[in-house]
Amino acid sequence: MTQTQNKTPSPGRPCRLADVPRWDIDTDVVVIGLGAAGSCAAIEARAAGAAAHVFEVAAAPGGSASWSGGEVYVGGSGGTRVQRAHGFEDSTEDLYTYLMMAGGPGADAERVRIYAEGAAGHFDWLEAQGVPFKGTYLPGKWIEPTTDDTLLWSGSEAAWPFSARAKPAPRGHTAQFKGWGGGKILMEKLCARAEAVGAVVHCNSRALSLIVDDDRNVVGVVVRIEGKEQHVRARKGVILCAGGFIVNREMVARFAPAALACSEVVSGGNDDGSGIRMGMSVGGATIHMDQFFATIPFFPPASLVKGIFVNARGERFINEDAYHGRVGHYVLRQPEGKAWLLVDNEIFGRPVIEPDIRVAAVGETWEEVEQELALPAGTLVHTVAEFNRNAAAGQDPLFHKAADWLRPLTEPPFAALSYCAGDMKAHAFTMGGLHTRPGGEVLDADGAPINGLYAAGRCACGLPRWGEGYSSGMSLGDSTFFGRQAGRAAAAR
Amino acid sequence: MTQTQNKTPSPGRPCRLADVPRWDIDTDVVVIGLGAAGSCAAIEARAAGAAAHVFEVAAAPGGSASWSGGEVYVGGSGGTRVQRAHGFEDSTEDLYTYLMMAGGPGADAERVRIYAEGAAGHFDWLEAQGVPFKGTYLPGKWIEPTTDDTLLWSGSEAAWPFSARAKPAPRGHTAQFKGWGGGKILMEKLCARAEAVGAVVHCNSRALSLIVDDDRNVVGVVVRIEGKEQHVRARKGVILCAGGFIVNREMVARFAPAALACSEVVSGGNDDGSGIRMGMSVGGATIHMDQFFATIPFFPPASLVKGIFVNARGERFINEDAYHGRVGHYVLRQPEGKAWLLVDNEIFGRPVIEPDIRVAAVGETWEEVEQELALPAGTLVHTVAEFNRNAAAGQDPLFHKAADWLRPLTEPPFAALSYCAGDMKAHAFTMGGLHTRPGGEVLDADGAPINGLYAAGRCACGLPRWGEGYSSGMSLGDSTFFGRQAGRAAAAR
Repeated sequence: MTQTQNKTPSPGRPCRLADVPRWDIDTDVVVIGLGAAGSCAAIEARAAGAAAHVFEVAAAPGGSASWSGGEVYVGGSGGTRVQRAHGFEDSTEDLYTYLMMAGGPGADAERVRIYAEGAAGHFDWLEAQGVPFKGTYLPGKWIEPTTDDTLLWSGSEAAWPFSARAKPAPRGHTAQFKGWGGGKILMEKLCARAEAVGAVVHCNSRALSLIVDDDRNVVGVVVRIEGKEQHVRARKGVILCAGGFIVNREMVARFAPAALACSEVVSGGNDDGSGIRMGMSVGGATIHMDQFFATIPFFPPASLVKGIFVNARGERFINEDAYHGRVGHYVLRQPEGKAWLLVDNEIFGRPVIEPDIRVAAVGETWEEVEQELALPAGTLVHTVAEFNRNAAAGQDPLFHKAADWLRPLTEPPFAALSYCAGDMKAHAFTMGGLHTRPGGEVLDADGAPINGLYAAGRCACGLPRWGEGYSSGMSLGDSTFFGRQAGRAAAAR
Repeated sequence: MTQTQNKTPSPGRPCRLADVPRWDIDTDVVVIGLGAAGSCAAIEARAAGAAAHVFEVAAAPGGSASWSGGEVYVGGSGGTRVQRAHGFEDSTEDLYTYLMMAGGPGADAERVRIYAEGAAGHFDWLEAQGVPFKGTYLPGKWIEPTTDDTLLWSGSEAAWPFSARAKPAPRGHTAQFKGWGGGKILMEKLCARAEAVGAVVHCNSRALSLIVDDDRNVVGVVVRIEGKEQHVRARKGVILCAGGFIVNREMVARFAPAALACSEVVSGGNDDGSGIRMGMSVGGATIHMDQFFATIPFFPPASLVKGIFVNARGERFINEDAYHGRVGHYVLRQPEGKAWLLVDNEIFGRPVIEPDIRVAAVGETWEEVEQELALPAGTLVHTVAEFNRNAAAGQDPLFHKAADWLRPLTEPPFAALSYCAGDMKAHAFTMGGLHTRPGGEVLDADGAPINGLYAAGRCACGLPRWGEGYSSGMSLGDSTFFGRQAGRAAAAR
């Protein structure tokens, strides 16, 4: 049997306090990772009067958030200033209901309640930290805005079944930045703010393992700073904000194997699961490790949303106006990994993000397309005929696609864009992580807190915990909001 | 912030060696739980010359396995003696392929390989321990045999897509027992054998927490034996065989929330997750905690398998001849929790296990049934018409149901049995657990073994790790086989 190297620090194995030679750094709150969660945790810890050191493995701060679109999913309380300015009332109850649906069977009602009540105020707080939001509204259906507008529809709010239970409102609030990549400006501002309020930031610093005392209190962390191992004392707490595990393919295979179907990782490169592993090393429980975001960016152009997806049975399987990450999950689970987007000449277009998508079939009739795809005779033809008949009446009795996106597919030539495995790229990040209280306290297998240990962002399992329910901006909203809670909780200890 | 009681033993929190007042019992191998895994672990530990103590929380041995049907899923190597006697060749490669498909995206090739190669020999070993197998073959489609026969079709072997990739063979081997509940005889024999070979069995004994030394070696366990806390030293290792967590509804809500849709638990009553929690407390990783067995026993009578399931869109969604637990998962995931089994007069029957299933609609025509179910006009009628047309030709081009089960539904009156949420009972047990090597070594978050700690059965994540892929007998096969591996590995340490 293999014996482990007992004294080598690694995330899966804590360092004992008795093995700490000396304290190289002594502070109140230690934050691991300077991304969306870590920056906000540090700001709040400082605001509460605690000294704070932040250790970031990359050469520059920002984390995966700085590579994102910079959308923050907020609303409720009657609407943020931006929602209200554009005529969108957004009640806390509607936001709550939507987020509970989005959380799937494992939705955390306590966490969702706190978020729904505090999200609009959180938007004001982000502005107060210096994050610029232009305040303009961009109608339509986008993956990310290509303009510098603020407010957009970023989820499944207007799509069934969400729209049937919660009054829809656009809730994606994007930092002002021309083109894709507003996360850069969001994180520049938040990281600058963390330093401005006195958090001590160390880049090129890899957290190696937690330090625990004999009573399982987390009292510090071993960090390799520019090549040198240092022992950092955290008098109040350690906050794990080191991201998810999508770039650690071995962890993906072990914990979220279905995500291996997605070739593209949504990450700044350091979502290696080390934060989650550190939490597990001291008995922290993980939840929903199998869940992941998976998108197939089949639009823009938005006209493609008027197409219909079919599987190898020639049947539809989703209302195509749902959030692209929801559609993505449904595409990925079709039998034999086969799915096609059917379009006619009027709505045909090349998806902007994957313009070389394979056109698997073209025909002057749907019969020709059906034959070219080698589908069972009559299946696709029946599906399209029924869709067309209902769409002409503005209805979709089977999948409840909203009327805005219903139009009969009747103008030849017809085509089938291939979203079969191997023909398209799916983009993923992980949603599972440490089980925490809304305050960030990491919980053990019995549900008891581990003293001195906190987690937020994708290190924790937060609002995003069900692949089918995700909306753009939910991870940044969760990370920044609950990063703040963790910073406050640790500082108050 | 809540402070935990640091010194109170609980599964989620290990006891430090330094806090052990004395050793009340001193042995080589400690086994927690005397069920399918624990009994076999103890037998093999003894066979390897190790002293062994087994602690069982219940008043009597046997665990959940003793309440089961007593089916063991084995084959390969050309067939067990029973398979061969009835003309079923069963190659190791076919068993391997089937089990890899059954394991889903997270299938563990190393574990499956070892099992496929050793399963037929394992059957001989079970017989050698005194487990009686009559050796007869029961054709047909059953949930559990009502006879005392041995061999039956217990999974999806003959159903698509499994049958298309692995040559089908019946692999369910049931201990000889008249009627349902062969697990009783299986466990009586295995537990008696464990005692006969010298394992010391303690019933009414609850394991409270693991004992670890300063280097995270597991060196024992705290057990409450008939009300008294005792410290048990395990010189070679502790083997966690304490079952899954289906009866711990708080754990189900946290780790496998979708399973809350199943009102019935498949358990002897002590699958409270305490073994898994003990493993987590020392840094053991858990995998696939979201996965669970879920069945809707819609047959026997087997004639009902000739019916077709439809959802609220009036569409089919599964080949109904697949294993009932696979069908169950598909039923549970249909939109709005709605599904019905359509039958005609010839195949109508009351499911034996749920005879009072609600008949949601009856009609002289399928139009009447469609209307009574309030389905979108024409949907169910089209589905049945297409099914009937193809079934008459012995084909099911959409779902690939095997020809044996294809028959047009043309004899009125017609009926729809309700498998909607609220109308039926689903039965569940959990599949997720500690991440282990095939030898039972529990692995930490980094994939490194935790010295002295082993797990098998539903405490570990074994062969059964994908709800959709389960077959009857797979859990008992896994538990007994890998329980043996763990017993040997611990004894050899």
